[in-house]
Amino acid sequence: MKLKAKLLDLQAGGRRIAILDDETASLIGVHSSDRVKIIHKNEYLVAIVNIASNFPHNYIGLYQEISTKLGLKDGELVEVEPAERPEALRYVQAKIHGERLRKNEIETIVKDVVERHLSDIEIASFITALYIHKLSMDEIEALSRAMVKTGSVLSLNKTPILDKHSVGGVPGDKTSILIVPIIAATGLVIPKTSSRAITSPAGTADRVETLCPVNLTIEEIKEVVKKTNGCLVWGGALDLAPADDIFIQVEYPLAIDPLLLPSIMSKKKAIGATHLVIDIPTGRGAKIKTIGAANTLAYDFIDLGKRLGMDVQCAVTFGEQPIGYAIGPALEAKEALSAIMGKSPADLREKAINLAGILLEMVGIKNGKRKAEYLLNSGKAERKLRDIIEAQGGNWKIMPEDIEIGDKKVEIASEKNGRVLWINNRYIVQIAREAGAPKDKGAGIKLRVKLGKRVKKGDILFEIYAERTTKLNAAIELAKKLQPIGLSKKLEERMLMNRIPKTPVHKEEFTLER
Amino acid sequence: MKLKAKLLDLQAGGRRIAILDDETASLIGVHSSDRVKIIHKNEYLVAIVNIASNFPHNYIGLYQEISTKLGLKDGELVEVEPAERPEALRYVQAKIHGERLRKNEIETIVKDVVERHLSDIEIASFITALYIHKLSMDEIEALSRAMVKTGSVLSLNKTPILDKHSVGGVPGDKTSILIVPIIAATGLVIPKTSSRAITSPAGTADRVETLCPVNLTIEEIKEVVKKTNGCLVWGGALDLAPADDIFIQVEYPLAIDPLLLPSIMSKKKAIGATHLVIDIPTGRGAKIKTIGAANTLAYDFIDLGKRLGMDVQCAVTFGEQPIGYAIGPALEAKEALSAIMGKSPADLREKAINLAGILLEMVGIKNGKRKAEYLLNSGKAERKLRDIIEAQGGNWKIMPEDIEIGDKKVEIASEKNGRVLWINNRYIVQIAREAGAPKDKGAGIKLRVKLGKRVKKGDILFEIYAERTTKLNAAIELAKKLQPIGLSKKLEERMLMNRIPKTPVHKEEFTLER
Repeated sequence: MKLKAKLLDLQAGGRRIAILDDETASLIGVHSSDRVKIIHKNEYLVAIVNIASNFPHNYIGLYQEISTKLGLKDGELVEVEPAERPEALRYVQAKIHGERLRKNEIETIVKDVVERHLSDIEIASFITALYIHKLSMDEIEALSRAMVKTGSVLSLNKTPILDKHSVGGVPGDKTSILIVPIIAATGLVIPKTSSRAITSPAGTADRVETLCPVNLTIEEIKEVVKKTNGCLVWGGALDLAPADDIFIQVEYPLAIDPLLLPSIMSKKKAIGATHLVIDIPTGRGAKIKTIGAANTLAYDFIDLGKRLGMDVQCAVTFGEQPIGYAIGPALEAKEALSAIMGKSPADLREKAINLAGILLEMVGIKNGKRKAEYLLNSGKAERKLRDIIEAQGGNWKIMPEDIEIGDKKVEIASEKNGRVLWINNRYIVQIAREAGAPKDKGAGIKLRVKLGKRVKKGDILFEIYAERTTKLNAAIELAKKLQPIGLSKKLEERMLMNRIPKTPVHKEEFTLER
Repeated sequence: MKLKAKLLDLQAGGRRIAILDDETASLIGVHSSDRVKIIHKNEYLVAIVNIASNFPHNYIGLYQEISTKLGLKDGELVEVEPAERPEALRYVQAKIHGERLRKNEIETIVKDVVERHLSDIEIASFITALYIHKLSMDEIEALSRAMVKTGSVLSLNKTPILDKHSVGGVPGDKTSILIVPIIAATGLVIPKTSSRAITSPAGTADRVETLCPVNLTIEEIKEVVKKTNGCLVWGGALDLAPADDIFIQVEYPLAIDPLLLPSIMSKKKAIGATHLVIDIPTGRGAKIKTIGAANTLAYDFIDLGKRLGMDVQCAVTFGEQPIGYAIGPALEAKEALSAIMGKSPADLREKAINLAGILLEMVGIKNGKRKAEYLLNSGKAERKLRDIIEAQGGNWKIMPEDIEIGDKKVEIASEKNGRVLWINNRYIVQIAREAGAPKDKGAGIKLRVKLGKRVKKGDILFEIYAERTTKLNAAIELAKKLQPIGLSKKLEERMLMNRIPKTPVHKEEFTLER
């Protein structure tokens, strides 16, 4: 039937939603969540119906995603008819019922997700069913391939193409800023794309952005890689595996992450990686808690890599405390730049040369770790980083002191003597975010102690940096409440881990960073 | 931080949604799906954030649900700050992880669903997790109680209060229109609330609405019951167990129904039922396919009834074909009125007196079925139905021929000789809906044959009624494609049930009616 288009001056976050009042919906014969085909001139598209009880009769309300696509003007007549539910919904239902999905079924789902034919409700149910029923490796492979197929790819026409990825979960991990230039300095190609923080205080893209622009197009990336063999760019706007961005929107509130493997590997496949090292930080405060879980995940990555034609090796790394001392975009960039210039915290340096070494050995270079160390010590890696910074539009001569950090600062001192028994990653993350990171690039935390360090009463445990006093004060308050650094004279003094039901309930944080 | 309220001239279907652009969201420190507290004068409420990338900075877009509640004017300043996620989300996550939920956890979830603190994504995930992990009887009881607690109740201050419910799935089931007056004619109280069709061609409320008004308030219902001992009203606007309406919104696109038991029983508890008969239509074309499944469900109903202080008995009824001959609101009302006046199809009559008989025996009346039969045959039930119709605002003298049915009609004839081997309920439903039911009250199907009937080529199998020619034509076309009535000389001639992969794919329909 013919309805008047009422254009809403609003986007629906990419969703294709049409608003009808009860009566008009009933006349067309659709309910909330049903689909309608909206036909205008020679074009049409399918939208998901939302019911708004006080919406005018015989109108169809259209968010900008639809009106723009159909080139509609307010008040124009469109033909609206009930549309079949997408085929993908049948496969979503099959997964809810615990069935294994076939390749073509998964392709249909991913295509319909990207083309916005599935609603939030349907995607949420799919994600939940995947999480509960688990995925077979065939399903994971099909998901990875479908996610690559429905997005853009970076075609460098070179081989090998190296890459590094961390599954995340440990704060302060600026290792990529060292690894990329080490690899690129050997002449090997490493086009590194990174994400921005979602639930953490800094993603690699946030860190690098304090050194140079990271928001490059695919063409610009090709230029940078041609010049320098490497890059450190934000992958978010490149349309690599765009299904993942939609899945993440749904996974985030649910705090489940069943698509970890296809999500990471589809993005690596999309940039054409042939050799990939995956860092799996492991420990009580990390995303992966135990060595056993890390090993299982590692073999899944390796298996999936083989299926996708990628050589994958994994490094299970110590994840029980932050990497280096700095947490927060600018603080971390500063620490990374100092590190590549020769003044590195031991753990950051050790992690970087180990991972770079694995990558080098994967492409046939002997004594990879020693070679990586040489590239770092000789200043070759530093010069390469500067070349990359310049190629991306930054200043070749940038010095650590040029990087602006928050001018509001406070030192948190120890209230007793003891040895650092634990540093709670999750609390560190919360305090850094409370201080303003990642939005306030200069905000964050600088640790003054790490695990095992002997501390005297009054010694500084960590500093909080912020750009705004209100944020600083909020972070201080949170730090006092959470006490992220645990001290004790002896391990034996700390036997009681939890009291039930009297234990204070802390906010459970979910790490979505991949 | 202070933001300008931009009031949207639109409802969000009851949802509490606030729109922010990326940058403003980032300044507040929230992502899509996070919560914000919106403070205005001395009031506040919590909304779920949606991100719209082209939304103006420093504005917060508010759907009418929020702006009305806070009494906001367009452009007014409101204080917006990040809010904690609702506690319920933790329990939703626990259910995703397969944990059993405790009573207080379920109460929290249901309360947050009704108060719109959970998003569609979160509710969809909860429903999916419930479906996959199943619910314990403790959880079902807690859900039922919480759903009653968060809604209105009908307090009649009488006992016993009888009720009847069908889990649905068989078309043409107008049995309630006979049972309610039979029971009420004995002086027993039976305040029957019914639903409108969601996926079927007619709900009892749709049927009765062609006889008299059904949209009564709780006070009006009390009046009707006081006068007549019974009623036949629409339960949808009474706010009985409102959580269910929100759950249904989510279950409908997913075509899963894990809340069948609490959904039905909470509504029965809310009207104060003490004695309840549950009809479980069973058969290939019904919602419940096998006697085994029906028995399991029956014992669950009985168990849940005990827990909720209700005496429950179940009737597993033959559900392999429609009840009576008429399908569609007016056609069914007409058939029911004729039936109570003495001209009933055998199955409708048999079903009504059996179910009414069970109810009568539950409150201590001997020979319930015979008593029900007497009330039907003597005209007492008919007079009671007329009293109820009048009390609800209809015409006491209404005759079957007064009920308007669609004036567009076509007869579908058999193309061969044979015996009716099957009548596909799902196809009958689809054709009736295609003809316009339930919206067009006069639309539907009138069967001319039922199972076992011998048919000659050219005999009429069924008639299609519609109010509009376009609908009639669409229904005829669908009827020809679906062939809802199967004929064969002998059963042995029909051995091949399905061909894979060559079987034609029919639209799978989901029955949500409860």
